[in-house]
Amino acid sequence: MATAFKLVVEYDGTAYSGWQIQNDVPTIQGEIEKVLQSITGQSIRVSGSGRTDAGVHALGQVAGFTCEITLSAQKLHKGLNSLLPPDIVIRSLETISPAFHPRYDAISKIYRYHILNSTWPDAIGRQYAWHLRCPLDMDAMRVAIGHCLGRHDFKSFEGAGSPRSSTVRRILSASITRQASGRIVFEIEGDGFLRFMVRNIVGTLVEVGHARITPDDFLRILHARDRNQAGPTAPSHGLFLVQVLYPAE
Amino acid sequence: MATAFKLVVEYDGTAYSGWQIQNDVPTIQGEIEKVLQSITGQSIRVSGSGRTDAGVHALGQVAGFTCEITLSAQKLHKGLNSLLPPDIVIRSLETISPAFHPRYDAISKIYRYHILNSTWPDAIGRQYAWHLRCPLDMDAMRVAIGHCLGRHDFKSFEGAGSPRSSTVRRILSASITRQASGRIVFEIEGDGFLRFMVRNIVGTLVEVGHARITPDDFLRILHARDRNQAGPTAPSHGLFLVQVLYPAE
Repeated sequence: MATAFKLVVEYDGTAYSGWQIQNDVPTIQGEIEKVLQSITGQSIRVSGSGRTDAGVHALGQVAGFTCEITLSAQKLHKGLNSLLPPDIVIRSLETISPAFHPRYDAISKIYRYHILNSTWPDAIGRQYAWHLRCPLDMDAMRVAIGHCLGRHDFKSFEGAGSPRSSTVRRILSASITRQASGRIVFEIEGDGFLRFMVRNIVGTLVEVGHARITPDDFLRILHARDRNQAGPTAPSHGLFLVQVLYPAE
Repeated sequence: MATAFKLVVEYDGTAYSGWQIQNDVPTIQGEIEKVLQSITGQSIRVSGSGRTDAGVHALGQVAGFTCEITLSAQKLHKGLNSLLPPDIVIRSLETISPAFHPRYDAISKIYRYHILNSTWPDAIGRQYAWHLRCPLDMDAMRVAIGHCLGRHDFKSFEGAGSPRSSTVRRILSASITRQASGRIVFEIEGDGFLRFMVRNIVGTLVEVGHARITPDDFLRILHARDRNQAGPTAPSHGLFLVQVLYPAE
């Protein structure tokens, strides 16, 4: 009899062409499927809560798969972590109803974006933050990010070449905090995200932070529904998929 | 006229065979000398406060060099950081008395060792901590590390193959703290360190933390002046040279 499993996965995206399996390039999904095949002898499809792009990290990506297996969840968990490369770690693995779908059942996702705003970059941890030398205006960025709250058409912040039928999403919370280390952490929770949406929002917020545009301009860009008006896409290595939330959690 | 400079250097040691220049392998000193040569056209010897071993990191290694140069310290600093690889960052560069010697003038050094003590390793930041699954007894390790305080012959914790004429060193402070993330940070300040000394102390403290030996055994090992009695050498990737202190700082 087939058993369904839910996984929470942490990964360092530096070495990967993103979550989704592709031919001839390393991907997180591809690595997990390869290890599952070597443990079970079966070709198993792992489905994620959504893709993450090349170079993006995750602390809590959620995925699911179904297979015929006699191993306990605990043993399967241990086996997976001992065979996966060290930049992919299964944080939890549990059996779940076969009806569970990591993408369709998700009610929201939390992303964080890390900027190191300091004269010099860091050597330690440089893989995990975008370094910007010029000081960012926290107050102006906070006003601008506030405009994202609620239900909006985020077409201005959608990556080119991957249009969705609907570009309307609801942002449930959005904050920017500055740590003593000089790190600025953007945290955004939404019921869904378009491709490159967080990185395009952060790239445009940085334009606000550098006073190249105003928070009012940010609002105008949001309303314009036109990618050409928004700022550049922030680099992938500052972005983390932190958590995927499901009902009754 | 020659000018003397003092550098504070941060580096991620992952990709390097340690601080000290060697033929045919990448080293921190080698990278800095290469970049200095390309900026000044001169062959410049950079001297450090001491070696760090292969894979060991630094937040504040101190080095010095002397050269004929017309560039300001500020411009030289900028030039160095723009040409060095991203895993080596010069945190500060200033002119200093030609009498300054980074090794002989140092009065103490602070090292930190990071252990991640949790069921599963981390993917993010795995390069910067030793992962140990079995819980460590903090109280027992704290008693044991206390025995290191003061002036002792640390021959039991000296790496093989690199004997010093004197193996007596003074430990000024030693602490162990546990962070909410499950990270345990060992911090040791001393007036000098033998090769592998911090890693051998930490490796032996872990034996105490796992109750394979007692804090009294640790004291007995310290007094034995015999490397064969101490525990294994902790891996290099958990170790950071944090700061080198000089008089009047």
